[in-house]
Amino acid sequence: MLTDKLRKIYDSVGAEALFVECDFLRRYLTDFYSTDGYVLITEKECTFFADFRYIEGAEKKLAGGPVKVVCGGYREALEAAKPYRVLGVPYPYVSATALKLYEKEGHETVDAMPAFRAARLIKSDEELARIRKACEIAEDAFNDLLPELKDGMEEREVAALLEYKMRRLGAEGTSFETIVAFGENGSIPHYATGDRVLRFGDPVLIDFGCKYEGYCSDITRTFLFGDDKKHAEFKELHAKVLMAHELVKERVEAGMTGRQADAVARGYLRSKGLAETFSHSLGHGVGLEIHEYPVLSPRGDDVLCDGMVFSDEPGIYFAGKLGIRIEDTVCMKGGRVVSFMNKTSRNCLIL
Amino acid sequence: MLTDKLRKIYDSVGAEALFVECDFLRRYLTDFYSTDGYVLITEKECTFFADFRYIEGAEKKLAGGPVKVVCGGYREALEAAKPYRVLGVPYPYVSATALKLYEKEGHETVDAMPAFRAARLIKSDEELARIRKACEIAEDAFNDLLPELKDGMEEREVAALLEYKMRRLGAEGTSFETIVAFGENGSIPHYATGDRVLRFGDPVLIDFGCKYEGYCSDITRTFLFGDDKKHAEFKELHAKVLMAHELVKERVEAGMTGRQADAVARGYLRSKGLAETFSHSLGHGVGLEIHEYPVLSPRGDDVLCDGMVFSDEPGIYFAGKLGIRIEDTVCMKGGRVVSFMNKTSRNCLIL
Repeated sequence: MLTDKLRKIYDSVGAEALFVECDFLRRYLTDFYSTDGYVLITEKECTFFADFRYIEGAEKKLAGGPVKVVCGGYREALEAAKPYRVLGVPYPYVSATALKLYEKEGHETVDAMPAFRAARLIKSDEELARIRKACEIAEDAFNDLLPELKDGMEEREVAALLEYKMRRLGAEGTSFETIVAFGENGSIPHYATGDRVLRFGDPVLIDFGCKYEGYCSDITRTFLFGDDKKHAEFKELHAKVLMAHELVKERVEAGMTGRQADAVARGYLRSKGLAETFSHSLGHGVGLEIHEYPVLSPRGDDVLCDGMVFSDEPGIYFAGKLGIRIEDTVCMKGGRVVSFMNKTSRNCLIL
Repeated sequence: MLTDKLRKIYDSVGAEALFVECDFLRRYLTDFYSTDGYVLITEKECTFFADFRYIEGAEKKLAGGPVKVVCGGYREALEAAKPYRVLGVPYPYVSATALKLYEKEGHETVDAMPAFRAARLIKSDEELARIRKACEIAEDAFNDLLPELKDGMEEREVAALLEYKMRRLGAEGTSFETIVAFGENGSIPHYATGDRVLRFGDPVLIDFGCKYEGYCSDITRTFLFGDDKKHAEFKELHAKVLMAHELVKERVEAGMTGRQADAVARGYLRSKGLAETFSHSLGHGVGLEIHEYPVLSPRGDDVLCDGMVFSDEPGIYFAGKLGIRIEDTVCMKGGRVVSFMNKTSRNCLIL
């Protein structure tokens, strides 16, 4: 028997069976993590194929549940899929090698990803709890990091230290490449952490996150490493970005589209003459993937509703000069935006 | 003009043009790293399409070289590929979404991966230098780690600490998920690092590696955390695995197949009655990917020759009891095996 969640995905794909190789979608379907394995979903049941490395763990974890565990590898899984002519597979996570093989096996394929995306838009209580934990770990690590920042440290050293702290606190790993940008490097929205050295008076932008039981967190803080009294403008701009960030939490409600949510922050920054400097979207969904749905941007059509998780991350950038971004991972609950982040300061800290 | 390296790959694929989206192959072709970008190789030239985030860096790094840099994203790259009907693309690293798009654009595709694999078998001096550096970082981190191992530490804490040390020493990240296995957990060849706590007298198996400028290292050490005098058998077995490991370095020569190399270690362990416990291959190629060619296993047909890099990692496993694996990343040079690892002990250390 399929659970309601799997039934809904199965029906929505409209294929005879779904066949999933990719690890995070396997985890989503079975709630069991392994580096290898295959999931076959037919109208009647969901089967997980685990090889000798994982069979014991899978049987223990999934016993008595709705997912049938079978010992086998790729060959066994493909054999079981054979009777189903039309296979739903998640195109973005299927290699051309695999696609050609499915075709050789006589299957026609359809893209199951839209159904996965739709299902994953609304998080279950368990998913929310995992994201909350991933956020907590990130915030705790950040708070631990602040007193250890020292003059002369390189960006990459700070990133390594922050990642270590998250791992020690129970994170599986980072949810994306940690961005640590000192001084003028903050002006590049997707800066690649380098060897710039921290100096008294530097602005610091840190954009980071971790994974907990497969689920991501995403957070950005911008602050000053000491006050050399040359940052009056920086502090003023920081206050404006923070206001844009907080307005989203205050004004965005269930029923609004991602476009309308984006407009709350963008409209405010426009009123301050900063619209041109806000060069990216307000936010993106956060879950098993660091970038998923809904999209909160001038082109975001998704209607926001309870159970959705997304980032609230307005930012402004002056090329070669400075960048300020303030980001929380938040969820929609009771029709309103509720932040997962309550442990770290969003203010323009001066260390 | 194409360089000899690119010309060889282009000719060997036999398509009208090659189109590469995947990051590490882009890096291999252009020697420039970016999270996004596209490479188009035609008979006449190699073009790298970089978007606004990377264009400045790419132009700076690649100026005057054989790779033409063009500002553009996916649309511009696809447009440039349009005139070439048959596209070579690396199937294992092309998503079904991308493949369907190429087909919609009117292209026929062929798999370029065999050509990439063949080209990557023999490393250039620059590639060898990067792998050497990745090995050095891994060894230095390991030596730093040993005195910090303490009674009561969890496996995942040790993994986090080791990864932090590699990052601090300049690694871009790990080359695979760090395996730290205490006690009986060592008996699972692909153990998933967990929360087992370190106790006096425990055997410790650590299998890890890092990336430096895109290139991987891979190393395993097995040792004792204190000697509770209950490990006479363990020490004897360790000496046998070490002998198998060293025999490979002594006896494997250019011209032998991966099968013959594997047989050197397997034959020795068989002579000691341990053939059944050596449940995996002797080794695998190491480079941009942690597992690449050549294959050193009972089914390895690749002929080993100068410039190849691979792991030498015999291991023996007694389920639920113990596991011992000793691994270096090595290269073939002057017809003989030369290890990249000279800083750490392979002996059965007793901490």
